[in-house]
Amino acid sequence: MDFEFSDNLKNVKSSEIRDLLKYIRLPGMISFGGGMPNPESFPSKEIKNILDDIIDNHSSSALQYGETDGLIYLRDELKNYLLKDENMHVNPDNMIITTGSQQALYALSKIFANPNDYVITEAPTYVGMLSSLNANSVRSVSVNMDSDGMIIEDLESKLKMLKSMGIKPKFIYTIPTFQNPAGYTMTLDRRKHLLELAYQYGIPVIEDNPYGDLRYSGSKLPALKSLDTNDIVTYLGTFSKVMAPGLRTGFTVSQPEVIHRFNMLKQSLDLTGDSLSQYIAYEYLKRGIIYDQIPKTINIYRRKRDIMLESLDDNMENAEWSRPDGGMFLWLKLNGKIDSSKMLKRAIDNKVAYVTGSAFYYNNPEINTMRLNFTYSQDDEIKEGIKRLAKTVNDEMKSY
Amino acid sequence: MDFEFSDNLKNVKSSEIRDLLKYIRLPGMISFGGGMPNPESFPSKEIKNILDDIIDNHSSSALQYGETDGLIYLRDELKNYLLKDENMHVNPDNMIITTGSQQALYALSKIFANPNDYVITEAPTYVGMLSSLNANSVRSVSVNMDSDGMIIEDLESKLKMLKSMGIKPKFIYTIPTFQNPAGYTMTLDRRKHLLELAYQYGIPVIEDNPYGDLRYSGSKLPALKSLDTNDIVTYLGTFSKVMAPGLRTGFTVSQPEVIHRFNMLKQSLDLTGDSLSQYIAYEYLKRGIIYDQIPKTINIYRRKRDIMLESLDDNMENAEWSRPDGGMFLWLKLNGKIDSSKMLKRAIDNKVAYVTGSAFYYNNPEINTMRLNFTYSQDDEIKEGIKRLAKTVNDEMKSY
Repeated sequence: MDFEFSDNLKNVKSSEIRDLLKYIRLPGMISFGGGMPNPESFPSKEIKNILDDIIDNHSSSALQYGETDGLIYLRDELKNYLLKDENMHVNPDNMIITTGSQQALYALSKIFANPNDYVITEAPTYVGMLSSLNANSVRSVSVNMDSDGMIIEDLESKLKMLKSMGIKPKFIYTIPTFQNPAGYTMTLDRRKHLLELAYQYGIPVIEDNPYGDLRYSGSKLPALKSLDTNDIVTYLGTFSKVMAPGLRTGFTVSQPEVIHRFNMLKQSLDLTGDSLSQYIAYEYLKRGIIYDQIPKTINIYRRKRDIMLESLDDNMENAEWSRPDGGMFLWLKLNGKIDSSKMLKRAIDNKVAYVTGSAFYYNNPEINTMRLNFTYSQDDEIKEGIKRLAKTVNDEMKSY
Repeated sequence: MDFEFSDNLKNVKSSEIRDLLKYIRLPGMISFGGGMPNPESFPSKEIKNILDDIIDNHSSSALQYGETDGLIYLRDELKNYLLKDENMHVNPDNMIITTGSQQALYALSKIFANPNDYVITEAPTYVGMLSSLNANSVRSVSVNMDSDGMIIEDLESKLKMLKSMGIKPKFIYTIPTFQNPAGYTMTLDRRKHLLELAYQYGIPVIEDNPYGDLRYSGSKLPALKSLDTNDIVTYLGTFSKVMAPGLRTGFTVSQPEVIHRFNMLKQSLDLTGDSLSQYIAYEYLKRGIIYDQIPKTINIYRRKRDIMLESLDDNMENAEWSRPDGGMFLWLKLNGKIDSSKMLKRAIDNKVAYVTGSAFYYNNPEINTMRLNFTYSQDDEIKEGIKRLAKTVNDEMKSY
């Protein structure tokens, strides 16, 4: 039987990153293409202890359906954590536990924007937000970035232009700290300026902060949410980068009206999150393990970032790249002649993989760009992989 | 800042069952309103052993991001399980692991139907399907049921009517075995007849089978999927009722084209399922624990079903009810004068709760109906609760 399908997925394409998996598994391949934390950073021993206690003492609730908003004990601990970590004052009632941050990107796109509405994203931006917009048939206007984050003058001129066209964007989406894919961090001045513009134009801000705790150099900057005096920011956090991504536990903090709508939508999306994983996250916070684990993770990732930057400095020609103060990625711009998508086959032949930058643009991609992940590979693989990549780029240049 | 929201949730209302939770927590309340398995049925000890092994031996993958289609080891074991349990021949490539069955209901609604398209559901039907249809702005035509399941003559006449109107329903959704909410089971004849009609009209069938393993009396009937010679059935299973619902692990078996689209959509919904829960489910199948656990669960639930039926026989007037051979629910029809929604306040005052039947209808509800869950309450609570409910009904009758 041949089926007819809806038009709902007409804009949805499979993520290039997911499709890249088949190459990554080839023997001898060094991949900077994924976005995975290093398993070395997983608190396995601590999770084992937690699990023993949970099953012994709480199995009747940890294995049972939970509430759609998420485990209240976890939301209470997150309140304490966000106050301590981000100086953010949060009411647990204004929070919903999400199945990864990805669920929040999908749900917020659907809650705020009708099909064919516009939102504002950074160029480049997180590929998971692009897939959520596409799945909801929402359109985006892109704001350019530099190494200080979103260029606020460009944001302002685009807001003006849209207003002159009678278009009000439904939200501004940003990853202000250690952005995925670029590794850029928005300066304090720009953060304040962004909020002023959001207030002025009355546009909600979605702040995605999966990497904020992973700072390897420089000084901590306040989250937009902690600077927000007008309750315009919806804040997304996750345990994926500071505990374990396989437990699919994130959280969204927003106005009661947003959380209420998210709750209603989540009832149809997956009813409720994984109870066991929420109990693990709760104990992980309550026991304070997170405060030991973050510095351990930072030490591993800082070393890997430094190795990648040194290897680039020593080997790479015909390119420039970001020097991120944290997070998991850096952004590499090749000589303008080179199309990184076309170069990928040569890279795979040389047994090194990356994600082409065009995957991270809503439209008008800079085709000479790529995202490199520095957290997952072994130290010596990073060195060798960058050498292979430098050779690939040199060979590609010669082919022009 | 006051936000403007999209129209996408205009048809979505919070589930009455979820809202009922606040009453269920009142001291002394006996609730037949939830849909929860009994924690007594959870294989806690076995899960603890499994977890110890997983963390010791597989933590780097069990805590890491997994593939969007789900853990391949789990899909391989499900292939064996479905062959043994349902005589179903399944290719693991034609399967996707879902975040509960709820995610499948949402995703399949979106994959098959455009906004304002029609599908066919049973009346009454599972409330989670109704919320998924509403969230996707999909409309439904309802087919009447009796104690032998969906009335196929009614299905045929509605298919004819729709065809004469130029409308092709995008799928037929059914829970053929121990239906939620009614507890009815579709006969073998009707199953065959349903498939014939689906073939004739070219309409995909979604078979939701969360309760099939929980049979307390009568003989097993084949799943629609195992009778399907034309690959028209999409089959939904879950570990929620035979392992633990808090682990949010279900699975969908369908044509490659459906699974491919589901995969693309899932990338934006939640990227990938909970890895730890998938590893637990995998070991639960591989070690054969499920084959010990199902009979244990059946023994508990059969006893509870029998207690509820006996209590009803002994106490209830002005009503008739289904006598389910399995599952978790029975369906009670009050004297036609009584509106079970209006009666709910009296019931709450009498410290007994249920879900009003109207929650389970897309439209035109039978307002004198209610769903009773018999798996969650303690045995003596079932007896006492039914007495309270019988008193409530008698008092309500007198008020007319």
